[in-house]
Amino acid sequence: MRDTYHEELDALSDRLIEMTRLARHAIARATTALLDADLDAAQEVISGDEKLNTLNDEIESSAMALMARQQPVAQDLRTIITALHMSGDLERMGDHAVHIAKIARRRYPDSAIPAELRSIVLEMGHQAEMLVIKAGEVVANRDVETARELDKDDDRMDRLRRKLLERILSSKWEYGVEATMDVTLAGRFYERFGDHAVHVADNLVYLVTGERPKDSYGEG
Amino acid sequence: MRDTYHEELDALSDRLIEMTRLARHAIARATTALLDADLDAAQEVISGDEKLNTLNDEIESSAMALMARQQPVAQDLRTIITALHMSGDLERMGDHAVHIAKIARRRYPDSAIPAELRSIVLEMGHQAEMLVIKAGEVVANRDVETARELDKDDDRMDRLRRKLLERILSSKWEYGVEATMDVTLAGRFYERFGDHAVHVADNLVYLVTGERPKDSYGEG
Repeated sequence: MRDTYHEELDALSDRLIEMTRLARHAIARATTALLDADLDAAQEVISGDEKLNTLNDEIESSAMALMARQQPVAQDLRTIITALHMSGDLERMGDHAVHIAKIARRRYPDSAIPAELRSIVLEMGHQAEMLVIKAGEVVANRDVETARELDKDDDRMDRLRRKLLERILSSKWEYGVEATMDVTLAGRFYERFGDHAVHVADNLVYLVTGERPKDSYGEG
Repeated sequence: MRDTYHEELDALSDRLIEMTRLARHAIARATTALLDADLDAAQEVISGDEKLNTLNDEIESSAMALMARQQPVAQDLRTIITALHMSGDLERMGDHAVHIAKIARRRYPDSAIPAELRSIVLEMGHQAEMLVIKAGEVVANRDVETARELDKDDDRMDRLRRKLLERILSSKWEYGVEATMDVTLAGRFYERFGDHAVHVADNLVYLVTGERPKDSYGEG
């Protein structure tokens, strides 16, 4: 049987996995809001972000309490510190979903995304979902091997964003300034969402191996 | 005389203050790179970011070592945890300066900023410098009162960004898609730089008072 201390450590990980679920839901709904000019979806993402903030708060309080009470060392200490990092990343992923939802809300009842870019944006949305779901699995299974793959998976997101920017910069781009701004920012928010998923995976690698993957810095 | 343990705690704060200096320098040079199409300035910001990353690494290692060895509680524990947060924010501020420098480098030998927007961008640059310098003072002096002002100071940055976006969206905007993208993203990077400075100040408030200011979430 696990004692209370180890139960509380496990609870950190449960909360993180719950955050990956919420972040996946948020980005999926944000993509719907964007592509379908769906105002309800946008509002849901915006008001739903509170749950991610609350979980982040709970992880932070719990981490502080554990450190103060148990004075953990080595592996347990790493568990707590990496939980703080991952939680911060997941909380920010929720914020990026909110930013995307706000673009959709601003342009409602129009869609912020020109018809010919819809498939790229949809693919970015799907890629974002896949990255955060994988990050959740990595945390749940303490799976270093899959964690190391996320960086490569994220290259796909970067390629999609470049494709988006190429379209905007092509001579065929016939949309106005608003569309240019919206697509530019939406592209960046999806890219950052992906980066944070990679950081979650990087922190899992650090947790298990004690080694930080190269270039594991947040950039946002 | 301070013992080694407390010297190491103080060293965390010294490193944070050094990071605010480096971040101020980076954003000042990035603004120069942007406004003057100054390629040397851009390169300097891009390669100089390594120093901020290294300091962030050092703070993280030192925090881990302190926690493992000293098993700090209460105020000392808060000092260490907030140092980790602040360091992360300052590291990201350096990244935002790098993003701005890269916009300048991409458009070289042209300037990415149309002539009529130069004063707004300059003001955003100055505001960013002011915010990070104030964050450094707040940390150095553990000054809760000034820390609480930063949120208001940052409103000015948000207003400047809105002004920038209004210009882009006005009927007089006569620049192409590239300029629209560059100005949109540059505006966002300055805004995020400011947000992170506010988070540093918020963490100082938490460190001293034990209370988190409302809405102190990172959004990027």
